[in-house]
Amino acid sequence: MTTIELGSGVFTLINVFTCEPEQQKRLVSLLIEATEKTMKLMPGFISANIHRSYDGKRVVNYAQWQNKESFEAMRKDPRAIPHMQAVGALAEFDPILCEVVESIAL
Amino acid sequence: MTTIELGSGVFTLINVFTCEPEQQKRLVSLLIEATEKTMKLMPGFISANIHRSYDGKRVVNYAQWQNKESFEAMRKDPRAIPHMQAVGALAEFDPILCEVVESIAL
Repeated sequence: MTTIELGSGVFTLINVFTCEPEQQKRLVSLLIEATEKTMKLMPGFISANIHRSYDGKRVVNYAQWQNKESFEAMRKDPRAIPHMQAVGALAEFDPILCEVVESIAL
Repeated sequence: MTTIELGSGVFTLINVFTCEPEQQKRLVSLLIEATEKTMKLMPGFISANIHRSYDGKRVVNYAQWQNKESFEAMRKDPRAIPHMQAVGALAEFDPILCEVVESIAL
């Protein structure tokens, strides 16, 4: 289970992928495979949460890392690069590096 | 606290706002105010989680509703519209309506 909390200090990556609807399912599979085989083994990984849009045109990965350093190390890791290239061949992506500033829940 | 889980059945809105960096703080304030004063009082609201990007150019609201119907009712509610207009004057927004298809956490 993933939690979103104010003050947790986690480094959040919200990566928005834009794809052709006929590629959405394949893109989801690639992201799950990349996370299971590579990302989750790297130091600092906390979570990856893959979402599919109902219109078929987007996939969003809401990912958490312990800090910016662990995220940057993953991006440069030779084990991660082939996965990112495979994803990049299917979709455009817009990675948003951010932090929680408010969490309001009932 | 907000949780992300596979199979929870929640309706997720990931709303990506693009703003001028000097407006980011104001935009965050408007979104918090809108949530506290209006959205969280509406039937079906579960959570809103406001994120600011480190580059100043984005704000992301990761929001959860019980189902599509409660989300659509909120969007048409006369109490919500002035808040959405105030936000729209400061930023472009790209609402992604989606569902969790995988959640991988250590």
